[in-house]
This record gives sequence, structure tokens and C-alpha cells, in this order.
Amino acid sequence: MAVGLESPGPIKAISGVRIGAVDAGLRKSSGEDLVVFEISESSSIAGVFTSNRARAAPVEVAMEHLQSAGARHLGGRRALVVNSGNANAGLGEAGLEDCLTVCRTVAAALDIPTAAVLPFSTGVIGERLALSKFTTHIGDCINALDEDNWLAAARAIMTTDTIPKAVSRTLRLDGDRQVCITGIAKGSGMIEPNMATMLAFVATDAALKPDELQALLSTAVDDSFNAITVDGDTSTNDSCILVATGESGIEIDALDSARVREEFARMLGEVTQELAQAIVRDGEGATKFVSIHVTGGASQADCARVAKTVANSPLVKTAMHASDPNWGRIYAAVGRAEVDGLELGRLRICINDVEVMTGGARNPDYVEADAVAAMRSEEFSISIDLGMQTDCSATVWTTDLSYEYVRINAEYRS
Amino acid sequence: MAVGLESPGPIKAISGVRIGAVDAGLRKSSGEDLVVFEISESSSIAGVFTSNRARAAPVEVAMEHLQSAGARHLGGRRALVVNSGNANAGLGEAGLEDCLTVCRTVAAALDIPTAAVLPFSTGVIGERLALSKFTTHIGDCINALDEDNWLAAARAIMTTDTIPKAVSRTLRLDGDRQVCITGIAKGSGMIEPNMATMLAFVATDAALKPDELQALLSTAVDDSFNAITVDGDTSTNDSCILVATGESGIEIDALDSARVREEFARMLGEVTQELAQAIVRDGEGATKFVSIHVTGGASQADCARVAKTVANSPLVKTAMHASDPNWGRIYAAVGRAEVDGLELGRLRICINDVEVMTGGARNPDYVEADAVAAMRSEEFSISIDLGMQTDCSATVWTTDLSYEYVRINAEYRS
Repeated sequence: MAVGLESPGPIKAISGVRIGAVDAGLRKSSGEDLVVFEISESSSIAGVFTSNRARAAPVEVAMEHLQSAGARHLGGRRALVVNSGNANAGLGEAGLEDCLTVCRTVAAALDIPTAAVLPFSTGVIGERLALSKFTTHIGDCINALDEDNWLAAARAIMTTDTIPKAVSRTLRLDGDRQVCITGIAKGSGMIEPNMATMLAFVATDAALKPDELQALLSTAVDDSFNAITVDGDTSTNDSCILVATGESGIEIDALDSARVREEFARMLGEVTQELAQAIVRDGEGATKFVSIHVTGGASQADCARVAKTVANSPLVKTAMHASDPNWGRIYAAVGRAEVDGLELGRLRICINDVEVMTGGARNPDYVEADAVAAMRSEEFSISIDLGMQTDCSATVWTTDLSYEYVRINAEYRS
Repeated sequence: MAVGLESPGPIKAISGVRIGAVDAGLRKSSGEDLVVFEISESSSIAGVFTSNRARAAPVEVAMEHLQSAGARHLGGRRALVVNSGNANAGLGEAGLEDCLTVCRTVAAALDIPTAAVLPFSTGVIGERLALSKFTTHIGDCINALDEDNWLAAARAIMTTDTIPKAVSRTLRLDGDRQVCITGIAKGSGMIEPNMATMLAFVATDAALKPDELQALLSTAVDDSFNAITVDGDTSTNDSCILVATGESGIEIDALDSARVREEFARMLGEVTQELAQAIVRDGEGATKFVSIHVTGGASQADCARVAKTVANSPLVKTAMHASDPNWGRIYAAVGRAEVDGLELGRLRICINDVEVMTGGARNPDYVEADAVAAMRSEEFSISIDLGMQTDCSATVWTTDLSYEYVRINAEYRS
């Protein structure tokens, strides 16, 4: 049950990106589970990968191949290959060998170098890939390449997601000129700041140099995929890729306009934020979508630490589930966040606009029924002011902890 | 449903400690909920308190009063007063005033100074104490003072605990001489290393100077109450008190025998460890009791960090609940524990004696049915060797994450 999340609206193709998606029998549930993105010669590619030290084989290989494949004008097309159903993680050298075999298979079929293929996997950890399914189905996948297959790809990368996630935006410039951004993503457990069990593939037809593209992506990821948490578990496989094909002919870096660059960055931020929030809305067992805003800390990092500690507290999350304004649990979570110099006498906590705590004590005018009413909604906010009168702030989006989360994760194996 | 936990066996009184426990109507459920411990003049008292910065009023007051009340021979008796049903936390100055009123009430009834009273509270956060219930019932509580009331006290401090927790041990010395230790504790959510929603009161009839007593307590707590976790949430109210009445006439520090001191420390460790494990066994919704052993890290702290990260991972805990050896989740949790220089190629993971991972990859001889069989038991262990060939190790005891945990915490208000 996703919270306030509907099937994607119209998705724009990105000139220079062709996609094939087929059912290769890699995931237990039926439907597409193998995707190839073919990326045109002129493109730049940037990537952000998991902070988990137990990186899956495809993450290791994608990071290495990106060194050479990320740059523009290297004389050829590049490809991304993605499978769901199996994470190819926790398998040591054998996992790396399997991953390189997949890359070689794709490279041979597209007649490009192996290092031009970036691999991505999501699913269960510790099981070897069924390589024969890749060799059998890669041909079909490449025969299916088409610019209009973004939604099929969004479906193919799902694991416990219930709804495919895809977003498009268009930035109109002077005259008839425009650039587009389209992205897809998947969740939906092991979701936590600093990447999640999360794959996201975003492309634009704008032209950007690799360094510029990487900088834009890193900023966008910090404010989106790194600002969500479902259960505090990071994954071995998290990856977010941004491709700039340049097919629109509009070079963002070359434009003599800071405004255009800002607008492009803002639009990219909207796409990644909408995808990130969609991951939370479709989080395992989610029945609530909760925004945690923390202000007035000594630093942005302190605010983020408090927001994350509150968002990940099982006691706060079960209270969210029950629409129970048990704000003492929020208060206790603030107290255990590792923040130096916290002055609890200045603490202020609101649920939506209901002030439950002020000056470090229960607001004398607080009426519990008001907070219950706020929390009964599918979406609400918890605002925490640490009272240091700074401009520092942080926002984290999260979900409740429900029976359904336990059921899904007690029963799940891809 | 507690895991392998039965009602306490015979509990020994500690000469010099008299206990009164009554039903003062402070907790929603019926039964005793207010306790006074009267401690004889000759006693030393030591304490360890929550690391949560949002300390409850009784923790603030107990820490302050312990400065003077902890020492021996200060010319009078001391008292502990404990209530369940209300944590007296998150209330600012008003909470401190209420707490001091409780102390004054007890002090007046026992004719001792207010600073000789140490207060403790557990229950819901953010509600004012019903002071009139204290003033009405303290007299009855003091009239009930008796050395044999340890079990009544163990019942009175329960919140969501299902079974009272009490342990006694006796150390026999040369001749007929002996010293006893008796302790009680309560859990059972917000349980996490560095103290928990946890109150523990332990007493011995041995004689010990306050500094010695504090040192013994701190070591015992590190290896017991700080080595358990249910949900990673620390509490505003955690307190562990150790009283040494000296009534046995045996001065542990004065004995010219390192062996006796060691044996006493070991016995104290047994008492605190059994109480700590009882808290986990009776953890909210617990259906499994799991020991996480981590060895071969660069330091004890690194081993403890890995053990705690694995123990608190919701994905590992739901897999425990389902008896599902989804060891990829253990592996991923090891990877996100903040440990520098982790060499995943040396990682070894066993479930009981079933080796699932070796040399950083799936053990080729691993048979999943063996691990399922191990996890089907109510009690099992997860052993993780980080492969650095050191003597460093850490153990954490924890539970699974069940539907019942969600139900209890979605519905709980004292």
C-alpha cells in the first residue's frame, strides 16, 4: 500500500537513450526483470554509489568502468545493464567474475568494449547469478531497444516496490529550445540516507561535461536520495546514474547564463526528490508519509543527525503507525542523537502546526486530540527546533513501522 | 511471550535493605507500582545512569543526591523511591519540582534529609506525576518495609514486562562466612547498549567503599546492561543502582585476597548479566533470544559496533523472526557498521555452528536447511569473525522484530 503515490504520468523519451526490457526469469515474480540502456556516443555519464563498505560486485565494476566510460567522445556508445531478483553481492571473486561475464555479453551484443558497460543488480544477496538467463535473453533485450521504454524499465527494476517510479520534467528556454530530464527509481526496503537499496537512472538531453554532471548529481542526491529513510539499513547495491546525451544541442555549461544553469539544477532536484519521495511512499509496509524538519542546530550535520535519529526510531515509527502523539518518544530520540551542546530547555516540537513541546517542556496549551487529528492523516510533519537561532536545517522523509513491514521482511526472498 | 524466561527462583533478602511496595494507582494496570527501599546507615551506594541527553527529572535528581547520599557513614539511612506508570520526563522545571516533592515526602516519612532520597521513575514521557497519589500512599509503603519484599518490588517496577526479573547469588568464603547479592530489573522496550528503559536495583551485604563499588558496578554494567539491545532506542530514565550494606561484616576491599575480590566481581557480573538477559528475553514481542558474537576486529569498540549494527538492523531482526537465514542482510549490516579498514574478503559468518560465509563469500559447502534448523530454535547465535586475527571481541544479546513488537508499541500508553 503506497502512501499518496499513483502510477507515473506521461514520461518523455530522452533522445540518445534507447531501452530494452525483457522477462528473463531472473526474479520470482513475473514481468520484465532485465534492462539494457544504450547510450549515445556524445553522452556524459555521472554516478553516485552506496556508502556501504560491503559493495556488491556490480557496484565495484560500475565504479571502475565509469572512470573510462563516463567521459564524452570516447569513440562509442555505452550501455547500462540492470537486473532485479539477484543483487550479486556477498560472493567474493565469483561475483565479480559473473558480473564481468554479464558485461562481456552485453558488450559483444552491442559491439562495444566491455569497459563501456556499467552493470547494476538488485535483489537477494548471496546467490550466484543465473548467467545462462543473461546469455539467453540479452539478444531479445537489445532487439527491443526503443526510446519509449522508460516505463518498462521502471517495472523491470522493481523488487518489493508495488508501483513503478518514473518522473519527467521539461525546461523551456528562449525561443522553442528546451531540455528534458527523465528518471526512474526503485526502493523499497533498506532505505536510509547515504543511499538505499535503491537504483535510480536519470537522463537528460542537455549537454554537460562529466565534471559538471557529477557535481550536479552529487548535490541533487544529497537533497533527495540521501534525505530519505525507511529502516536505517543501507544496501550493498545502491547506485544512481545521470546521463547527459547532449542531443538537444543545448550545452548547459556553455550557456552564458547562470539562471539557466540554476533552473536546470532545480529541475534535476525536482526529479530526484520526486523519485526519492516515491521510494518512501512505497516503502515496505508504509501507511504514513512523514516529513521530519529540524531547525536551529549548531550545524546542518547536527540537524540531519537529529532528523535521522527520530526518523529511524522504532518507537517513534510505531507511534506514527498508531497515529499516537507519544511525543516523549520523539523527545527521547532527540536526546540520544549524538549532538554536542544540546540545550533541551530550548527544544520545541510541533506535529504539523500543533505545538506539543515548547521551552523543553510540554506546551501547557497542548490539546492531545489536535495532534491525534494531525497524525491520522496519511501525511504529516514533525518539526523540531533545537533553539540555537541559527539558519541550519535538515529535512528527512520517512514512513511508519507497520505489521506489514514485518510481514514483508519476514517473508521476502526474491 | 518471554523467550526461555521463567518466574524468579528463591530470592535472598539482603540484611540492611528493607523494601515496601504498594498499589498507589500510578500505573494503568493493577498491582504494586510504588516502591521504597530503605538502606541502612552503614551502606555505600553506586549508580550508572542513561547516556541519553534528555535525562528525566528523577535521573537529574538521583545523580545529584548520589553525590552526598552515596558515601558511607553520613549519619543516617538513605532511601530509593521508585514508581512505574510515569517517567516524569520531558517536563522541564515542573518535572524537577514534582520529583523533589516526592523526595521530600519520603524524607519526611522516614525522618531523613531530602538529599538522602534517590528517585527513579519509568513509564510514559511528558505527563505530570499525580503527586497526591504519592502523598496518600507513601505512609502505607513505609509501613510495609520488610527485608523479604524483593519480588513485590520486581513486580512494581514493571511496565510492558510480562515477567518480574530477580536474581540472587551467594559467595561462600572460608568457614561459614558468605556474602549475598540480590538484584531486580525491568525492561522492556527502548533497550539498547549504554543503558535502556531500564531500571535495575542490586544490593549486597558485603562491605565496599563507594569508589570500589562504583568501579565494580561500571564494569558489570558494561558487560551486561550495555551489551543488550531490543530496538536501539535509549531511554530518558535508565538507572542502575548498586548498594553495599556491609551487614555481613565482610569488607571485600580489606580482604587480603585478590581471589575473593575477583570472585565477588564475577558473581556481580553473573547477577547483572542474568538480569540483562532477562530483559532481552522479555523484550517487547520477542520470540527469539539471539547472541551476536563478533571477533577479530581491530579493537573491542569495532567489534561492539558491528555487533550492535547487526543486532539493531530491522532487516536482520525480521529474518530472525522468520527463521530465515538471509545472511546477506547480516553481511550488509556488517558493511554499514562504521569500521575502518574492514577487509570483507576475510569475513566469516556462522549461525550456531553452520558456516554460511567464509573468506568474504558464500561457503561452498553451506546447506541452507542447516541454518534454517538452527534459527528455528528459540535461541541461537550469530558469530561474525572480521578476520584480523586479534583477540578483540564483543557480544550483544538481542531479539527478533515481530508483529507483536509493532502491536505493543502502536498501542502502548502507560
